[in-house]
Amino acid sequence: MDRRPVIGVMGGGTADDPTLETAEALGRAIAEEGWILLNGGRDAGVMAASASGARSGGGFVVGVLPGRGSNPGGVSPDLDLALFTGMGDGRNVINVLSSDVVVALPGGPGTLSEVALALKSDREVILLGWGPTPLPATLPSERIHRVEDAHQALETIRRLLDR
Amino acid sequence: MDRRPVIGVMGGGTADDPTLETAEALGRAIAEEGWILLNGGRDAGVMAASASGARSGGGFVVGVLPGRGSNPGGVSPDLDLALFTGMGDGRNVINVLSSDVVVALPGGPGTLSEVALALKSDREVILLGWGPTPLPATLPSERIHRVEDAHQALETIRRLLDR
Amino acid sequence: MDRRPVIGVMGGGTADDPTLETAEALGRAIAEEGWILLNGGRDAGVMAASASGARSGGGFVVGVLPGRGSNPGGVSPDLDLALFTGMGDGRNVINVLSSDVVVALPGGPGTLSEVALALKSDREVILLGWGPTPLPATLPSERIHRVEDAHQALETIRRLLDR
Amino acid sequence: MDRRPVIGVMGGGTADDPTLETAEALGRAIAEEGWILLNGGRDAGVMAASASGARSGGGFVVGVLPGRGSNPGGVSPDLDLALFTGMGDGRNVINVLSSDVVVALPGGPGTLSEVALALKSDREVILLGWGPTPLPATLPSERIHRVEDAHQALETIRRLLDR
Repeated sequence: MDRRPVIGVMGGGTADDPTLETAEALGRAIAEEGWILLNGGRDAGVMAASASGARSGGGFVVGVLPGRGSNPGGVSPDLDLALFTGMGDGRNVINVLSSDVVVALPGGPGTLSEVALALKSDREVILLGWGPTPLPATLPSERIHRVEDAHQALETIRRLLDR
Repeated sequence: MDRRPVIGVMGGGTADDPTLETAEALGRAIAEEGWILLNGGRDAGVMAASASGARSGGGFVVGVLPGRGSNPGGVSPDLDLALFTGMGDGRNVINVLSSDVVVALPGGPGTLSEVALALKSDREVILLGWGPTPLPATLPSERIHRVEDAHQALETIRRLLDR
Repeated sequence: MDRRPVIGVMGGGTADDPTLETAEALGRAIAEEGWILLNGGRDAGVMAASASGARSGGGFVVGVLPGRGSNPGGVSPDLDLALFTGMGDGRNVINVLSSDVVVALPGGPGTLSEVALALKSDREVILLGWGPTPLPATLPSERIHRVEDAHQALETIRRLLDR
Repeated sequence: MDRRPVIGVMGGGTADDPTLETAEALGRAIAEEGWILLNGGRDAGVMAASASGARSGGGFVVGVLPGRGSNPGGVSPDLDLALFTGMGDGRNVINVLSSDVVVALPGGPGTLSEVALALKSDREVILLGWGPTPLPATLPSERIHRVEDAHQALETIRRLLDR
């Protein structure tokens, strides 16, 4: 089994400019490492920005989409592979199960559900740019890694993949 | 459409005694109101306690289970209906979409995923016994209701159903 | 575990009059036996007819729906419980896993997928009113039971539940 | 949107030698066309053979797996990308929604469910090596294409993609 690592990048369908810039930088860095970028595939927010960055870095981008693929609109133009699930938010489970490491940028309830599902499935989660955002103490903090920029996120991914 | 309201009760597969007692009291109260209780169906923690309470109150209990039903072990004995999804944590989405109101008792990442998915799906969520547990500010706080006992939860459910 | 048996009734979202009459008669008979009727929950075809029959027989009807519940239209008015999955045809797996016996009336590709998924999950399948409709020889024929009316279907269900 | 076409190749987890040889030849041909091969990802039968063929042809292979990825065993060694769904047969829906064309080699109920779900989702389906295997007349025959070898399958795929 010599598959390339898959790095899941989650985050809001809407996001402020600094977050979008971070998402793009992270996507590019993931591509330059030769890793596959996986995200939610929509043409919006952190999904679109990270896909665009990875494509500019020459990487491979897979989007796991909530829809059925009957409407091409709404799909990021930078995907190499679009997985259509027809399962709405149920696809969030697939995102985290299919990622070797999950990076979550700021987002709303959808992003939080992916953080929670990743932890439930024993994945490591990197919170990128969440600052001191509080989380319930019942979460397994030893698998939650807080970083503040794409560079730190990359170093943490590298360290987690090396274990 | 004269279906009885469905109240989803979420919470940890393991829980301390006061939480289990609250879950059982809430289940009984839901049954006595004539509402249907929906939970994750497993024979553990808040699921087992709330099902047991609802059964003792003469109610109807539906469990939406992660497994395929090939192994009868692990299913709460107090269910009137067991839905087998074979979808693991993917079933959490079904739990919240199928509930008119979601009540979450304390739990770990699985419970937090249900809170987040409920909010993502525009449901109202009652946090029962979470005390001052912090949540990210990006969640829609106007649909999060914090209460500290089963009686307050019931009043909040009643109020939300009446809208 | 003293749960009532769950009988899944599948079939087309559109159907001719004799098929609808059979679906309604079967639904009523299932209710009169005290079994729970499970179907796809939509207000159309075999789903609507079997739900209507079961309700008239005083039974309990659960519909497992493809949608998210955001649009009340399209849901059979005769359900006692509506499970919203948001998973489109992915909900077909849940239908068959949750049924102790699956009865399939005539239908199109959706119904055939439920027959196939039920057989894949080691369930027994009753084909009701399919006449000599051919099926691939690779299917496990020992779990496929062909009957031509609701009365025969009921006797076969009884026999399968008694095993 | 310049994504490469995705060709789904379905078929039994066990298969006879001629079927396995056809699956391998088809996988290689798909890779040589520059298309992405998508299958069920397990290390068995038509899945393993088509993945092996595609890899030997220098292609990209994505497997959409029923499991959670907690057990590396059972995953074809020839995947470039493994999507873990944790949804059992529920993943069959994803397979067909994500494929521009679905090719089904002989198989049992799981394969038949994918044929049916693809037709339900308005996809074109190529039956490869099914001979005169009968199918219900209620299926939309205009979207079912019967061919007997990998070469014919390839020509049919090409024709369908050109539309």
